[in-house]
Amino acid sequence: MVRVFTSARILDTGGGSDDATRVVDILVDGMKISRIADHVDPPEGAGVVDASKYLVTPGFVNAHGHLAMTLLRGLADEVPLDVWLHNYMFPREALMNGDDIYYGSLLALAEGIMSGTTTFADMYFFEDDVARAVDEAGVRANLSTGTASLDNEQGRLEKSEEFVVRWNNKADGRIKASFGPHAPYTTTPAFVMENFERARELGVIVQFHLHETREEVADFTATYGASPISYYADQGYFENPPRLLAAHCVHMTARDAEILRDAGASIALNIQSNLKLGSGIADYRLLLGSGVNLCVGTDGAASNDNVDMLEELRVLGLVMKGSTMEASGISNASLLTMATSNGAQALGFEGVGTLSDGATADLVFWDLEDESFCPRNNVASHLLWSANSRAVDSVMVAGSWVMEHRQLLGIDIDKVRFEVARRARRLADG
Amino acid sequence: MVRVFTSARILDTGGGSDDATRVVDILVDGMKISRIADHVDPPEGAGVVDASKYLVTPGFVNAHGHLAMTLLRGLADEVPLDVWLHNYMFPREALMNGDDIYYGSLLALAEGIMSGTTTFADMYFFEDDVARAVDEAGVRANLSTGTASLDNEQGRLEKSEEFVVRWNNKADGRIKASFGPHAPYTTTPAFVMENFERARELGVIVQFHLHETREEVADFTATYGASPISYYADQGYFENPPRLLAAHCVHMTARDAEILRDAGASIALNIQSNLKLGSGIADYRLLLGSGVNLCVGTDGAASNDNVDMLEELRVLGLVMKGSTMEASGISNASLLTMATSNGAQALGFEGVGTLSDGATADLVFWDLEDESFCPRNNVASHLLWSANSRAVDSVMVAGSWVMEHRQLLGIDIDKVRFEVARRARRLADG
Repeated sequence: MVRVFTSARILDTGGGSDDATRVVDILVDGMKISRIADHVDPPEGAGVVDASKYLVTPGFVNAHGHLAMTLLRGLADEVPLDVWLHNYMFPREALMNGDDIYYGSLLALAEGIMSGTTTFADMYFFEDDVARAVDEAGVRANLSTGTASLDNEQGRLEKSEEFVVRWNNKADGRIKASFGPHAPYTTTPAFVMENFERARELGVIVQFHLHETREEVADFTATYGASPISYYADQGYFENPPRLLAAHCVHMTARDAEILRDAGASIALNIQSNLKLGSGIADYRLLLGSGVNLCVGTDGAASNDNVDMLEELRVLGLVMKGSTMEASGISNASLLTMATSNGAQALGFEGVGTLSDGATADLVFWDLEDESFCPRNNVASHLLWSANSRAVDSVMVAGSWVMEHRQLLGIDIDKVRFEVARRARRLADG
Repeated sequence: MVRVFTSARILDTGGGSDDATRVVDILVDGMKISRIADHVDPPEGAGVVDASKYLVTPGFVNAHGHLAMTLLRGLADEVPLDVWLHNYMFPREALMNGDDIYYGSLLALAEGIMSGTTTFADMYFFEDDVARAVDEAGVRANLSTGTASLDNEQGRLEKSEEFVVRWNNKADGRIKASFGPHAPYTTTPAFVMENFERARELGVIVQFHLHETREEVADFTATYGASPISYYADQGYFENPPRLLAAHCVHMTARDAEILRDAGASIALNIQSNLKLGSGIADYRLLLGSGVNLCVGTDGAASNDNVDMLEELRVLGLVMKGSTMEASGISNASLLTMATSNGAQALGFEGVGTLSDGATADLVFWDLEDESFCPRNNVASHLLWSANSRAVDSVMVAGSWVMEHRQLLGIDIDKVRFEVARRARRLADG
């Protein structure tokens, strides 16, 4: 299908003007943007859509999360990470089945779409059921089987590998697969090494929770004589690297950051989860100056508690400015890049997270008539600092609508809500 | 008019259960809640409304802001407070007229209502036009004339006083008036003292920006030998106190906090504005332990950049937990109290910000069918950490709808948007 969206206001982060937007026509042909220009002549038979009331942006890339944790939303608000994980999450996760994961993931995908996200990262289990949900919802994702337990690792790694082979580059390229050793405190170094080796052989990335809490880094250092990142680097895990997508990275030294930069790694920042669990505030002067590819993720809805990238991005920007006491420490353009093209790079999706000729048509149409965009002093600023998901009108992934005028198309939301509610009750009852 | 809302889920912060809500009938008679109980027999002629799909909460009390700054939204994102104020705000404010203020205030009130706020604080100028907007919109507010300039103070104080006499307790008690010396760095001590004296005589509160930036406290201390709060206390301004509503208070010593507690003062926290302007992060361990009445305000939309109390409250809670590294440092119930009854106390409104027999009927109806409340593991938690303004269905102030099923009733929003847009263009052009 060929469509021309006329007079759309788009973000043009390279523009350098006070208001980094411009008004263009966008030609979408199949899965891609075939042309963006001041004026595009519609090809024969093309649909022409007046988009003058919309701000069009690339869909957000949510670079770290656990989709099905929507099932566990709100169970433990006032406890630190270790208690949250061992006393509340692990016991209930042990009761989950594949259909729980499927419906929980669909709810997260729906929330993501409704708030402007088109690409997701996931690390969880029953990952085939996550892939099924992603495929049906019509969105883009990089999926990994999380291996959180120290026992039975060998079998788990083989299952991870089978999953990667089964799903990588499937669903017209919308799904990529990866490895997901959970965290240094739930895996042995040998197991982590094996994950990196398999990922290297298969040419996929590794998703890994790293340096989330001060205690976890201190405990590991007491045992192994170096921080997790330094230790793994010294052992050579990051050489000839498969790309590493490190989540959290709240507690880092300059050397840790240099290692990640030199390894071509990315960091998915998860500010709201880190704040809520009392994990602390990263040294953003260090991270912003490190040269590491920084991106943004919501983490799971059991610690955040929603799947809303704009909210995540806003809190991140605010805390970057507030904690460094430098209002100019991070620009609007840099923040928006973190949530779009930086994330796409981290997840290995080329031509995603940007608006240009040949890029994928993963588009969000924001309603400029929402009060948050009034007056239009600076539309890019209003998106970042004033709007919320109330203003998301329509969302397209790979040239197909996944939400049109606030109606989800790939997800039967009433059924999903019903299924999530009854499954959550079963998990809560134990 | 008499109405019974049946089977409404309400927040019951005193309940102590995991999910601090219960299901009740609510009898609204005139401007007040006349009865809340498990079952209420509808009086003869009462309207009966099925409210089973709603969470009903007290409306939020926005304890500090500058409503008409919506006109200046997005003008300066990456500059610190002093540059923001002197280079961007003051020059444009000098161009504003009363009708600008009226329409800018209406837009802020609309945003506030749409995100669940029923009571507002304001400190700005052409304050009669703010009062006109508040009266027409049907909401509740405590309004003060901000006096930001060091010149011509005597005349300004008289105008402030005339405003207080003209508007205090008007609009069926929905409007209270107060004094508003701007800040220590824009006023002389003698002028501040006079504000407190007049407020004492008239029995109203004083709104005052205090200790917002480190530099401002250091500069004042260099001149007067003590921090602003300590100096004013030593001079006796806070004795036989009119109530003080201190905004910001980012940079405080333990003695400053003790002074405010002993003076019966309130602090309106403005976390998003403080973070965005790089003013820093308060010592929340100190503030939470101080015994001062803490409440929450959005500040103006030129530094925030919206008028959304739920967003403000969420960021505040997250930063309280993250900066102290204590996930249990602040409870959900305490946060919700800050944004409701604590704020009402600060602004001098009795029977506001609470759901109980005899309280004012200032109610927000949240749509429990919004995805952010699924699954219903803990509705109070979901409101605080997962929902946003998308879920606000209806809002009532003093027993009258100001928004019903997402339609604003007291504000012609299309006209307001048109007027704000054209006035903002004039101000931007200079």
